[in-house]
Amino acid sequence: MRTTVLAGGVGAARFLRGLFQVVDQADVTVIANTGDDSVFHGLHISPDIDTVVYTTSGAIDPERGWGLADESWRTMESLQRYAEHGAVTWFNLGDRDLATHLWRTGRLAEGCSLTTVTAELAAAWELRYALLPVTDDLLRTFVDTAEGELAFQEYFVRLQHSVPVTGVRFAGSETARPAPAVLDAITKADRVVIAPSNPLVSIGPLLAVHGVGDSLRAVRRRCSAISPIVAGAALKGPADRMMAELGHEPSVVGVARLYAPFVSTLIIDLADASRADEVRACGVEVIVTDTIMSRPGVGATLARATLGTHDATDWAP
Amino acid sequence: MRTTVLAGGVGAARFLRGLFQVVDQADVTVIANTGDDSVFHGLHISPDIDTVVYTTSGAIDPERGWGLADESWRTMESLQRYAEHGAVTWFNLGDRDLATHLWRTGRLAEGCSLTTVTAELAAAWELRYALLPVTDDLLRTFVDTAEGELAFQEYFVRLQHSVPVTGVRFAGSETARPAPAVLDAITKADRVVIAPSNPLVSIGPLLAVHGVGDSLRAVRRRCSAISPIVAGAALKGPADRMMAELGHEPSVVGVARLYAPFVSTLIIDLADASRADEVRACGVEVIVTDTIMSRPGVGATLARATLGTHDATDWAP
Repeated sequence: MRTTVLAGGVGAARFLRGLFQVVDQADVTVIANTGDDSVFHGLHISPDIDTVVYTTSGAIDPERGWGLADESWRTMESLQRYAEHGAVTWFNLGDRDLATHLWRTGRLAEGCSLTTVTAELAAAWELRYALLPVTDDLLRTFVDTAEGELAFQEYFVRLQHSVPVTGVRFAGSETARPAPAVLDAITKADRVVIAPSNPLVSIGPLLAVHGVGDSLRAVRRRCSAISPIVAGAALKGPADRMMAELGHEPSVVGVARLYAPFVSTLIIDLADASRADEVRACGVEVIVTDTIMSRPGVGATLARATLGTHDATDWAP
Repeated sequence: MRTTVLAGGVGAARFLRGLFQVVDQADVTVIANTGDDSVFHGLHISPDIDTVVYTTSGAIDPERGWGLADESWRTMESLQRYAEHGAVTWFNLGDRDLATHLWRTGRLAEGCSLTTVTAELAAAWELRYALLPVTDDLLRTFVDTAEGELAFQEYFVRLQHSVPVTGVRFAGSETARPAPAVLDAITKADRVVIAPSNPLVSIGPLLAVHGVGDSLRAVRRRCSAISPIVAGAALKGPADRMMAELGHEPSVVGVARLYAPFVSTLIIDLADASRADEVRACGVEVIVTDTIMSRPGVGATLARATLGTHDATDWAP
């Protein structure tokens, strides 16, 4: 049984950690968002790919939810010396984490594709699942705000997603081609899961790459999604506010409407059980289970529920 | 009195530290070698510029002679994870030092010239002299060896300058233009000093930039050089072997022959006093003084001797 997961950052990574408790990593392909990728100090940063790798290898810092545990910040501290001369000091890069960015940047400069470097990254962390960037081409998420259009990390990190968003754009999506193995990973999987990530800016960039949305539609019957919205709120990040700001109901119903063209099942939290009928009215089946993965054991339970192999007592029929 | 110094790395930096004990930094311009510049992990590294900055600001690691004191190596240690996947692990970059390279690379990517970034670097370290890269254009030193042509850092760091050199080439020198203030810094200075650096691969790249050699020739009467060779040996690095390998006598006489077109005076060590007449026979005046700057106070004495304002008892007539 091949499982393919469409992944953003922290929520997806936590789901994958649970998934790998119930299925063999070697049977899983992860298609990762690259819309958050950025260049800082000339270094190619792939935040979502790194969060997935660091989390699933157990190296993530559990407090922050991003970057490596046992991290130090000597380079960032030293960068302050150049703050008056244009150094970007608001995007934190730990000393250990920097090695990943240095190496990735060097490999890309040598002409390797992001697909190749990402496969090597997974291998270097001894991961056995296939990790694919959604595209090797340029794909960059921008958001419209009262301050003008901002690159995603400007909005997300520098402004701590504190400003309202009035639009989202995926620069490059008109021409970005899916990375070599991406479409097959969707169409040939036994089941496809959209991880609990921000539908608009984590999964949105994947759907914007030519062929990805159509491939999902073609296998919609085997596709499910996990709602990142629980009781009207995002567990992490600005998904709830952003959905409201962009005209979507910030609820499992809003998520169902966004994903209905691509998935046949939505996994929602117990807290949203009362809205199951509204979700069904969007044309998707519903599984109700515990989705809040900060609690021990929930990741595996959620993974079982999502794969439809969970114990029936875990969820409402 | 304006003094301009043509500088390589460690030897030049130590000379400058002595110089700033006897003249005001604000009256000095340093023209630095960029032939050693390299790109590692996508980062623009300027080893000679950084050695000059770190040394003259007192931040250099005194044991190594390069990089920063109180340094740590967390990023380099972490880079080992990627060694099997093409990471360059032989060029050591300390965590604190990395900040300089990140910032410089970011500034260059924004379109700043190396001249601008280097001036900002000096300002960030609270230096008051003018520090100029010899060129803003590409200039890269390559050496011919039995292993083929090698980029300078491959030879110098990876191979620890352990292989014979059969040729030197400064890629880009045909088209590299002197950085904006360079030629004026030579022709309008009251005195020009070639620091005790490797004549072939530290000063050679400067002389290879169009207009630099001619400018020196035009003011030769005001130009002096300090021999980096003492008693037939380089104090640091491969200058002695390299001179022999490339057909130059590895001695103050060999240095005098190389520099005679550009300088009217050569400063040689007490250990070479017996060869003063041979140096004079090359057409350059001679000052004999202590040049070994690892001893306390010698840097300032050497600077005074070089500027001709030293106490007469310090040197042989």
